[in-house]
Amino acid sequence: MEYLENDPIRLSADRTAVEVIDQRLLPGELRWVSLRSAGEVAEAIRTLAVRGAPLIGICAAYGICIAAAKALREDREHFFERFKTDSLVISGARPTAVDPYHAAQRLRRRLERQRSAGHGPEEITEGLFEEAVSLHEEEIRTCLAISELGLTLIKDGSTVITHCNAGAMATGRYGTGLGPLLLGAEKGYTFHAYVDETRPLLQGARITAFELMRAGVDTTLMCDDMAAYVMAQGKTDACMVGCDRVAVNGDTANKIGTCGLAVLAKHYGVPFYVFCPVSTIDLCCKTGADIQIEMRDGREITGLYFEKPVAPEGVRCLDPSFDVTPAELITAIVTERGIFYPPYDFSAFGKG
Amino acid sequence: MEYLENDPIRLSADRTAVEVIDQRLLPGELRWVSLRSAGEVAEAIRTLAVRGAPLIGICAAYGICIAAAKALREDREHFFERFKTDSLVISGARPTAVDPYHAAQRLRRRLERQRSAGHGPEEITEGLFEEAVSLHEEEIRTCLAISELGLTLIKDGSTVITHCNAGAMATGRYGTGLGPLLLGAEKGYTFHAYVDETRPLLQGARITAFELMRAGVDTTLMCDDMAAYVMAQGKTDACMVGCDRVAVNGDTANKIGTCGLAVLAKHYGVPFYVFCPVSTIDLCCKTGADIQIEMRDGREITGLYFEKPVAPEGVRCLDPSFDVTPAELITAIVTERGIFYPPYDFSAFGKG
Repeated sequence: MEYLENDPIRLSADRTAVEVIDQRLLPGELRWVSLRSAGEVAEAIRTLAVRGAPLIGICAAYGICIAAAKALREDREHFFERFKTDSLVISGARPTAVDPYHAAQRLRRRLERQRSAGHGPEEITEGLFEEAVSLHEEEIRTCLAISELGLTLIKDGSTVITHCNAGAMATGRYGTGLGPLLLGAEKGYTFHAYVDETRPLLQGARITAFELMRAGVDTTLMCDDMAAYVMAQGKTDACMVGCDRVAVNGDTANKIGTCGLAVLAKHYGVPFYVFCPVSTIDLCCKTGADIQIEMRDGREITGLYFEKPVAPEGVRCLDPSFDVTPAELITAIVTERGIFYPPYDFSAFGKG
Repeated sequence: MEYLENDPIRLSADRTAVEVIDQRLLPGELRWVSLRSAGEVAEAIRTLAVRGAPLIGICAAYGICIAAAKALREDREHFFERFKTDSLVISGARPTAVDPYHAAQRLRRRLERQRSAGHGPEEITEGLFEEAVSLHEEEIRTCLAISELGLTLIKDGSTVITHCNAGAMATGRYGTGLGPLLLGAEKGYTFHAYVDETRPLLQGARITAFELMRAGVDTTLMCDDMAAYVMAQGKTDACMVGCDRVAVNGDTANKIGTCGLAVLAKHYGVPFYVFCPVSTIDLCCKTGADIQIEMRDGREITGLYFEKPVAPEGVRCLDPSFDVTPAELITAIVTERGIFYPPYDFSAFGKG
């Protein structure tokens, strides 16, 4: 496949490394790192050098391939044992994220198909690379489809508020929530984006602002508590966000702060759009009440990024990673299979 | 007057210095500094070592007194010229804040009254100290009255969300928005406070959390984008905030983020209370549209407090210091003269 300049991941030409942008260094530094073993890939996923559910899925798929190629070169007779171990190492790097696990399952099925057909390690390794590239291409196609549909919801000159990061840096290319802006910018549209910095981890300030500015979108960074100020001016055309999980009834879990933004949008009459691949819809969750919210320990609120502590020592923090936006606050949910409006019922959709 | 342990300001026993807590160092360090000249007082106000409209008014009043006492000791024959210059230096330290200016005017009137009565510099200096102490005591009485009224709006065990800092550190004692919690804690009530960190300047994390924990209030710090998460649990009894200016119709300017919090409170059915002395009501502002909002340059969003930049170099920032909460989102406005409910009409109130 052809890699583009702004893609955050690629396979090295000699296929010995997965090359990724180390997102922990953004926006200060755009540094590519080469991951050359299962351990290095797992470490990059674990430490958030690579982040975003679709992107770590792609990274895992390539990682398993380069590990297989390495086994082929170094230790051909234990090829299958090493495949098993390497897949486990990589897919277990972030246990709660399902994408690396799905990627590993897919590559394992490919390996088994070829093995049953009598193929040896060389042919199988070729097959794995083919499968990983397919997965990557599918993710990009999905994002492109979502972005194109999303683009029909805004127009040249629109002003959009974003929260967190759901761009190419999280998905591979275009993104979900940021997809319409990035794709539209590519087509020559002018957009004005107000970017929530997104406390506590500042993905908006660090990554979304970076991606939008790079794409030439007119970008204004703000603190999360300034969104009402912007909406009150009456010039906001839409809020656009990605999401982490969608329940059958349309309730949506996304980065903490999303629900509050949706409440503001409703109050000010601003359309609130959620973007995601169909694979994000979780049939096991009938409503948002079934979505478990990861609670973190608050050190990212009081300490991370700061030169010195900004809160009293030992203060208790509330630190949910996500919140659930009730379906009734969501104007539309945009997937690669179409734009859905309330009342939502995704019971006919599978999990990927 | 008697100074209490948690007061953030006091006159030194020998009346040569205004002693203040350097609030820039909170919460890491509780350091008292002694300001011994008009220049030092002005510098402390200018650099936000002392902050909060009522508190800088008190600081200015004491500052003018200690400067007069210094002039008396060092340069008695130019006492009146020095008084004029020192007052200007202090009251001009933060041109947009009206409290130091009011304090200086009040002390000037006192001086002129005594001078007309034939008093010399010694008696006048005594009179100035008396006047400054009166001003300080009045501010405390006002806050106490506000806090007592506010306390009738919640009860033992209540859960309250706060934004920014409107406690003793901003006012002298008790505070306005924090007053009911601090006074109630003193009376032995148990409260649960969820404290917005209040980006960009983190007054909630740095000062409110400090004051509430010191008072023994059960305190939980959170990012501003987590307030909806808390309200959605259905356990929030009230939001309580101070304010910077109130228009005749009840529209209220306060720290950026206040309006968004008020919108959330309305959505979730949580009472939203604003606290202020009557002097905060500005008869020149018929509605919030007449209140000018100070815009800052965004460096406090991208750089201040952070170890390294958290946003792309050169990104444009939106950085309003305040927002205006429309009167219809405010459940009640609590002043020392009573609790007011909508529809608000403060046209009968003066400016202090």
